Amino acid sequence: MAKTDNMAKEDKSIGSGWHFSPDAIHKPAEVDTAAPPSAGRRSFLRKGAAMAGVALAGAGGGASVAQAAKLTVPEWSRTMGKPIPPTDYGMPIEYESHYVRTRSDVFVNRQNYSDWSMSPLQKQQGIVTPNGVFFERHHNGTAKIDPEQHRLVIHGLVKRPLVFTMSDLMRYPSVSKFHFMECSGNTLTDWREPRSTTVQQSHGLLSCAQWTGVPLAWLLDEAGVDPKGKWVMLEGADGSGHLRSIPMEKIMDDVLIAFGQNGEMLRAEQGYPIRAFVPGWEGNTSVKWLRRIKVVEGPAHVRGETARYTDPMPDGKWRQFSMEMECKSVITSPSGGMTLRGGPGFYEIQGFAWSGNGKITHVDVTLDGGRNWREATLEEPVMDKCLTRFRYRWNWDGGPARIASRAKDSTGYVQPTVEDLAREREIVGFVQHHNGIYPWAVSQQGEVTNAIG
Amino acid sequence: MAKTDNMAKEDKSIGSGWHFSPDAIHKPAEVDTAAPPSAGRRSFLRKGAAMAGVALAGAGGGASVAQAAKLTVPEWSRTMGKPIPPTDYGMPIEYESHYVRTRSDVFVNRQNYSDWSMSPLQKQQGIVTPNGVFFERHHNGTAKIDPEQHRLVIHGLVKRPLVFTMSDLMRYPSVSKFHFMECSGNTLTDWREPRSTTVQQSHGLLSCAQWTGVPLAWLLDEAGVDPKGKWVMLEGADGSGHLRSIPMEKIMDDVLIAFGQNGEMLRAEQGYPIRAFVPGWEGNTSVKWLRRIKVVEGPAHVRGETARYTDPMPDGKWRQFSMEMECKSVITSPSGGMTLRGGPGFYEIQGFAWSGNGKITHVDVTLDGGRNWREATLEEPVMDKCLTRFRYRWNWDGGPARIASRAKDSTGYVQPTVEDLAREREIVGFVQHHNGIYPWAVSQQGEVTNAIG
Repeated sequence: MAKTDNMAKEDKSIGSGWHFSPDAIHKPAEVDTAAPPSAGRRSFLRKGAAMAGVALAGAGGGASVAQAAKLTVPEWSRTMGKPIPPTDYGMPIEYESHYVRTRSDVFVNRQNYSDWSMSPLQKQQGIVTPNGVFFERHHNGTAKIDPEQHRLVIHGLVKRPLVFTMSDLMRYPSVSKFHFMECSGNTLTDWREPRSTTVQQSHGLLSCAQWTGVPLAWLLDEAGVDPKGKWVMLEGADGSGHLRSIPMEKIMDDVLIAFGQNGEMLRAEQGYPIRAFVPGWEGNTSVKWLRRIKVVEGPAHVRGETARYTDPMPDGKWRQFSMEMECKSVITSPSGGMTLRGGPGFYEIQGFAWSGNGKITHVDVTLDGGRNWREATLEEPVMDKCLTRFRYRWNWDGGPARIASRAKDSTGYVQPTVEDLAREREIVGFVQHHNGIYPWAVSQQGEVTNAIG
Repeated sequence: MAKTDNMAKEDKSIGSGWHFSPDAIHKPAEVDTAAPPSAGRRSFLRKGAAMAGVALAGAGGGASVAQAAKLTVPEWSRTMGKPIPPTDYGMPIEYESHYVRTRSDVFVNRQNYSDWSMSPLQKQQGIVTPNGVFFERHHNGTAKIDPEQHRLVIHGLVKRPLVFTMSDLMRYPSVSKFHFMECSGNTLTDWREPRSTTVQQSHGLLSCAQWTGVPLAWLLDEAGVDPKGKWVMLEGADGSGHLRSIPMEKIMDDVLIAFGQNGEMLRAEQGYPIRAFVPGWEGNTSVKWLRRIKVVEGPAHVRGETARYTDPMPDGKWRQFSMEMECKSVITSPSGGMTLRGGPGFYEIQGFAWSGNGKITHVDVTLDGGRNWREATLEEPVMDKCLTRFRYRWNWDGGPARIASRAKDSTGYVQPTVEDLAREREIVGFVQHHNGIYPWAVSQQGEVTNAIG
């Protein structure tokens, strides 16, 4: 077979060439939109062919086609790559430098030290959030703690108060578990009208990791809890001295003294060298930079339990200790700010579902603003109090659509609408614990926008 | 209660003080070694108390004790922390700068571009290896590929050859799965005598991630495979043009065209923008920087299948296409280079088990060089072709010990000894596919060393 010089390198190993027509590349998609929305894999692929890969014309044509295509061997196939350094901790390639967490640009924060950053959910693959883009929320900036100097104290209603160095804690048996973490304020900007442009802005105070640590129950077992001790106070060593009270029942169930996240020691902004991790409960209960654990008779009603982290109710009172993050879901692709490029045809809808009360058992997707619902596929592994990815194959007909997801958890709880929530609580301003169904509008041009309210 | 000024800050929120005796801190551990090795959690904690946390003496003592302890409020509790930047991709804290992948310092490599780096398994938490320390193996260094220019071609024995841009591929439905990756050469330095000092050196060509991509079966379905096509060749776009042949049966089972790893797009060194991912098979079959897929009648017997990636057999022939990574395990803590600080007492043995042929069903641990074996606990989730963490609580009596693990997978295969392997294969020099049981020696001083051979 005739070959150009440029072809020779690729061809030498298996004795054949690359042949494709320049016209065929980037040819506009030609999609049959008649297939039913619930079409299975084979029909997705058959219908989506022209969209998802372009047929190589002239496959038997040889060099003239290759020459017409101006096919060249790219730089990276002709040169030596970058050698491996003696030691390193690697970083993403510069082409992916847009994959970052960002401070909110919706609800502008004027206190630089009591701040938050949001995770780019719309670009996340799988269920594990990279530590580099795991959302942040601090009351006094990120503390930098020397692990050799750090101490954890357990005292209060215990037989034997204890103090631990990091070496002490690391000698304990430990456990590793996958769990999501969500700030109680996630989505608080978008109750009645769309303020966020992207899902990063509306839902980005949400991330998921594999956490490693020592169950606090084991440490308390050793300290010997007085039967009068029904609550546990957790205090951070950062400048804010953040404090929360947690009922003993939850502590004994699954609270960790965590030192590891996604395979490595905690990042500074996640509470290095140790934090509490309270699975499924609002993020601020997982006190970072943990220095003190005090067993007490009742909750302490500290600032984070009275002035903050409470919810207004219709009767004018404020609900305290609403710490479980209830079942919630959101479509991350397509989501606000994206465009369905390529026009009508098949698109895979993807999103996250999670519950602080158990496993996700079911996710439905609507394409028509909630009139009809269709079952999405849950991707394994589906774990307790963990992000679950759902997928649904959508054959977009090119008309306006209003898409949303609705999750159900293992307690039978079904994700409510904002209207449902408004019947139980006072939704006024930026209130917390918004787990409502969240719609995106798709225009005829394929533009996706926030459609809440 | 009397307070020093230094105590005031900690005390104000919950009305009590921190009281501990300077003598109690870092007091040598006092451990009862009489407890049985199989002791459960409660006895671990009861016996391990003095080791794992030091009792606070003088809990009712007040200020004089605090003053004697020279208790001060640390810098990080008195100052503002670091504010959140507008956007960022975070990095580990400098105290953890020892957590890096390293080039081998055992089997010295003189070809800087055909190189490898090893993952710090001894420090890994959980089962997900951070992308920053995921092991590397290249034949020509790390290629840097512009994703907009990159193309993937499918041709050969197909009805319709196809070319894909990255946008084409990303429009496909995808899947995300947790799987380990291991180089066929992992542990090749340590068959008959100890050469490696640490488990990073002996077993660090092993890592695990959640991979996201499009099943290659779906793309081939679209291209239309000719019934004569029984193998598939995969070719990389880096300067080495690395090639491997994979049987069609495996391709149709679970091979992915992967673009995501642990929540983000692949790192450059892992094949950005796309690689093959062949679950459970030797790492070099998961061709990085993938540019070409050719459906063929039989394997191509390229260099990576004749000169390399073959195993010598006792009859003088070389075994080809031994691509499944068979069931294997290793203890990572305690492991070579560590010391059991604190002397006799309880230690949690931890390690990894994995199999390219299914799930891990069982791991046993020996403390006496293989005479007796005890069952370890497998930590959930236990997934197919994925690292599984095992744990075993060991009450070290302070005498010399020889510890090792032995895994079994869902096919019934039991991890062999080196002697078992030597009966089937020719173990001479640095041969590949070493999945033998791997012992560490523990001295009376608590020093842990490589005890292979």
